[in-house]
Amino acid sequence: MKLNCDMGESFGAWKMGNDSDVITSISMANIACGFHAADPDTMAETIRLANQHAVTLGAHPSYNDKLGFGRRHITHSLPAIAHLMAYQIGALESLCQLHASTLHYVKPHGALYHDMMMDEQIFITIIKTLHQLNRYRTQPLALMVLSRKDNHRYQVIADNYNVTLIFEAFADRTYLASGMLMPRDQPGAVFNTIAAIKQQMRYLLQGKVPTQNGSWLFLAVDSVCVHGDNPQAIQVAKELATLITAANHSCDNGR
Amino acid sequence: MKLNCDMGESFGAWKMGNDSDVITSISMANIACGFHAADPDTMAETIRLANQHAVTLGAHPSYNDKLGFGRRHITHSLPAIAHLMAYQIGALESLCQLHASTLHYVKPHGALYHDMMMDEQIFITIIKTLHQLNRYRTQPLALMVLSRKDNHRYQVIADNYNVTLIFEAFADRTYLASGMLMPRDQPGAVFNTIAAIKQQMRYLLQGKVPTQNGSWLFLAVDSVCVHGDNPQAIQVAKELATLITAANHSCDNGR
Amino acid sequence: MKLNCDMGESFGAWKMGNDSDVITSISMANIACGFHAADPDTMAETIRLANQHAVTLGAHPSYNDKLGFGRRHITHSLPAIAHLMAYQIGALESLCQLHASTLHYVKPHGALYHDMMMDEQIFITIIKTLHQLNRYRTQPLALMVLSRKDNHRYQVIADNYNVTLIFEAFADRTYLASGMLMPRDQPGAVFNTIAAIKQQMRYLLQGKVPTQNGSWLFLAVDSVCVHGDNPQAIQVAKELATLITAANHSCDNGR
Amino acid sequence: MKLNCDMGESFGAWKMGNDSDVITSISMANIACGFHAADPDTMAETIRLANQHAVTLGAHPSYNDKLGFGRRHITHSLPAIAHLMAYQIGALESLCQLHASTLHYVKPHGALYHDMMMDEQIFITIIKTLHQLNRYRTQPLALMVLSRKDNHRYQVIADNYNVTLIFEAFADRTYLASGMLMPRDQPGAVFNTIAAIKQQMRYLLQGKVPTQNGSWLFLAVDSVCVHGDNPQAIQVAKELATLITAANHSCDNGR
Repeated sequence: MKLNCDMGESFGAWKMGNDSDVITSISMANIACGFHAADPDTMAETIRLANQHAVTLGAHPSYNDKLGFGRRHITHSLPAIAHLMAYQIGALESLCQLHASTLHYVKPHGALYHDMMMDEQIFITIIKTLHQLNRYRTQPLALMVLSRKDNHRYQVIADNYNVTLIFEAFADRTYLASGMLMPRDQPGAVFNTIAAIKQQMRYLLQGKVPTQNGSWLFLAVDSVCVHGDNPQAIQVAKELATLITAANHSCDNGR
Repeated sequence: MKLNCDMGESFGAWKMGNDSDVITSISMANIACGFHAADPDTMAETIRLANQHAVTLGAHPSYNDKLGFGRRHITHSLPAIAHLMAYQIGALESLCQLHASTLHYVKPHGALYHDMMMDEQIFITIIKTLHQLNRYRTQPLALMVLSRKDNHRYQVIADNYNVTLIFEAFADRTYLASGMLMPRDQPGAVFNTIAAIKQQMRYLLQGKVPTQNGSWLFLAVDSVCVHGDNPQAIQVAKELATLITAANHSCDNGR
Repeated sequence: MKLNCDMGESFGAWKMGNDSDVITSISMANIACGFHAADPDTMAETIRLANQHAVTLGAHPSYNDKLGFGRRHITHSLPAIAHLMAYQIGALESLCQLHASTLHYVKPHGALYHDMMMDEQIFITIIKTLHQLNRYRTQPLALMVLSRKDNHRYQVIADNYNVTLIFEAFADRTYLASGMLMPRDQPGAVFNTIAAIKQQMRYLLQGKVPTQNGSWLFLAVDSVCVHGDNPQAIQVAKELATLITAANHSCDNGR
Repeated sequence: MKLNCDMGESFGAWKMGNDSDVITSISMANIACGFHAADPDTMAETIRLANQHAVTLGAHPSYNDKLGFGRRHITHSLPAIAHLMAYQIGALESLCQLHASTLHYVKPHGALYHDMMMDEQIFITIIKTLHQLNRYRTQPLALMVLSRKDNHRYQVIADNYNVTLIFEAFADRTYLASGMLMPRDQPGAVFNTIAAIKQQMRYLLQGKVPTQNGSWLFLAVDSVCVHGDNPQAIQVAKELATLITAANHSCDNGR
């Protein structure tokens, strides 16, 4: 299990996040590509930082919407989604090459991530785009998606195009019995104590998560998403990293 | 000798140029990369068009300035120039990969092109950037520059980093004895008859060009830049293409 | 009855429309305000042109979306709509003052126009915004809306805030029996012969319009929208202007 | 003597400055207008905050350059400067009207401020623009400029167009004997102790400031610029406000 975090979301004179603090706790950096946040200088700086800490690099492409930080739904045709994905991934990869580094995965951002999980045609378009780009890559790009009850459906499509899926979960969000996340605007949707977040992380390390109605959800989880934009978030990242390390040791001992 | 033309300079609902007309006369397309013009959809469409006509693809990166169409000088640090070059080249290359195509060269646009020719540090930065990207490429990127009296100086730098230079000239501009182009805002700087342009093209095919004071300038010329943004320009492109074909036949006959 | 036309929709180096041709046929210019199109220089130039031809000036504000030309729906809060309306109207009015001119009305553009007609809360927000701005104005701003069967409902709200409504209709679109326009993507939605457009204009001058199922729709019409972005459109504008002049003369004769 | 501070320089999801903290110490708010920073929502929120604290509202227009935060020099024609000034001032004024408030002055931002102080033609253009807008205003707009040795020259021009000048000075910057500020990139250009800043403020309250070579500069000062973008800056603003209050009391006592 690995921790991933959105990074490089500053823009020009505007700073966002505490990348240099949170980077010490994570192993996967989702790097903004200039459409919802970042500019070429910010991207280069974030790649440099990730390299220093030997963190795996991922692209974090989005709709072209700085004013809305990529969080607003804007209808796109399927070819338009393929084009904006390819554009941003290529731009970031090229900056990685300046630093003798490479991308390993893609995690769409904000509304694009949401639309990918809600509209199978968009998911398929993204998978096909990665498939086409992977023909030219030594290091194939994986796709990070939300782990849900219906992972199998997505896995079949991804397998068809030979794209690896990385399933991510959230340690700080309430899950519904349906396997979906409770929407953010509902009370209790986001945990606000470190204890609650750590408890959910322990469950996730066991492959399960409690849902709102008390039932258990059993989820494949490759990566847990953490945040870096407030002091508590940095502390949370540290604690979750410690839990993962402990779980790995425990596994080692069991051998 | 080849004709090159700036292409794909539409943006969203705004159209510019007559790409589908001029493409039949040229062999090198300088494709805008989203900073002074174009968006991912326009770029994809332009790549498709160039592929249909078997035209060689080049990147046409610029300062990030749509309002000024990349023609305004904006001071950038050298690393910032490396970053914006890499970003745009990578973005375009990635879209090329969706179309099973690849880039062959880079021609900076507008103020960036001008600054590259006026500031050796910027030229070196661009050469180094291509060198770094070429380490990862099967098809190395060449750099298109203005052919001048001091080509040797640039050639030495480019050779040092193993980057091929493509020297371009203009059939429709008055050259100064210094080897520079007469600035556009001076009377007579731009030819406005097809006859005058064709005459200069014939000279360029012989490796020379008359200057303002009547002397001759002897220039290495690999490519001549034509325009596609007005009806006469399309006619000019056709006529220049015919002159090149005739010159090639003449060469063949001479063998 | 007056003709209105969207104007000033160029942006930087990109030109759109044939403003200087169509302006001779119309009496109301809907001027872009920099969010879906235009920049301060384009706006100033358009004001100057409209003043030369004694055309009434209107603001044509939109969502902040140049890439989508303001045609894409992007969800906004009601206060955000009030803010973007006020921002754009104020910006344009200020440029009018440089030319000793003033605005008379507002016509929202694209998706914002559509949302205003589909969501009463957005309509009310826009009416309230004009009401607030009108407290400071010698020349109160009217609001241009689509004339429909339910005009009365809108009129009541507008009266409540003392805002004048200008009802517009289309001479080149098929109306449904419901009083709505047939969506553009349906066959026959847009008339493509000048004869058909002129015929519908004659009906509109009589306060009625035929609908798809053969029934008549009786509509209050203060203004008819024409386009300026293609050669036929210029011809259409001229012909419609002639019809209006003839109708006015006929009225005069009848007195 | 009054304190002024740049405010409302957030943009979308990116926050900048501690407006709600610093606002309690200042009496003049320079509000960003959407070109170097801010969006309509941020502007409305900043107006609301300034109104709550009865702070005088000023427009803080700039070149259209969010990526460079308005700090990069970009050459503009004089009409273009008039247009961008009018656009931004009108946009902000209109939002003020939604809050039953109005603008009192204009302070250009960043590179535009610098260019105004270095190029008399730009200064004249800005004065003329305010003059033209003031014809329509109940509350005429004043212009804030850097107080220098040659204030008289600027005063003559401003008087000619009936525009009031507000002379500002800096309590945290080293002045050269020429009356100019020492460039920021030189050592000692910016004071980094509160004690030094307070000392310079005491001198400014007496109408003088020490220069680098030990001589005194006698300056008309109507307003001192403070910053709000770091914790010490908030403390500085508080201390300078206290010094001003004490000076005013001292004046009162002396009567």
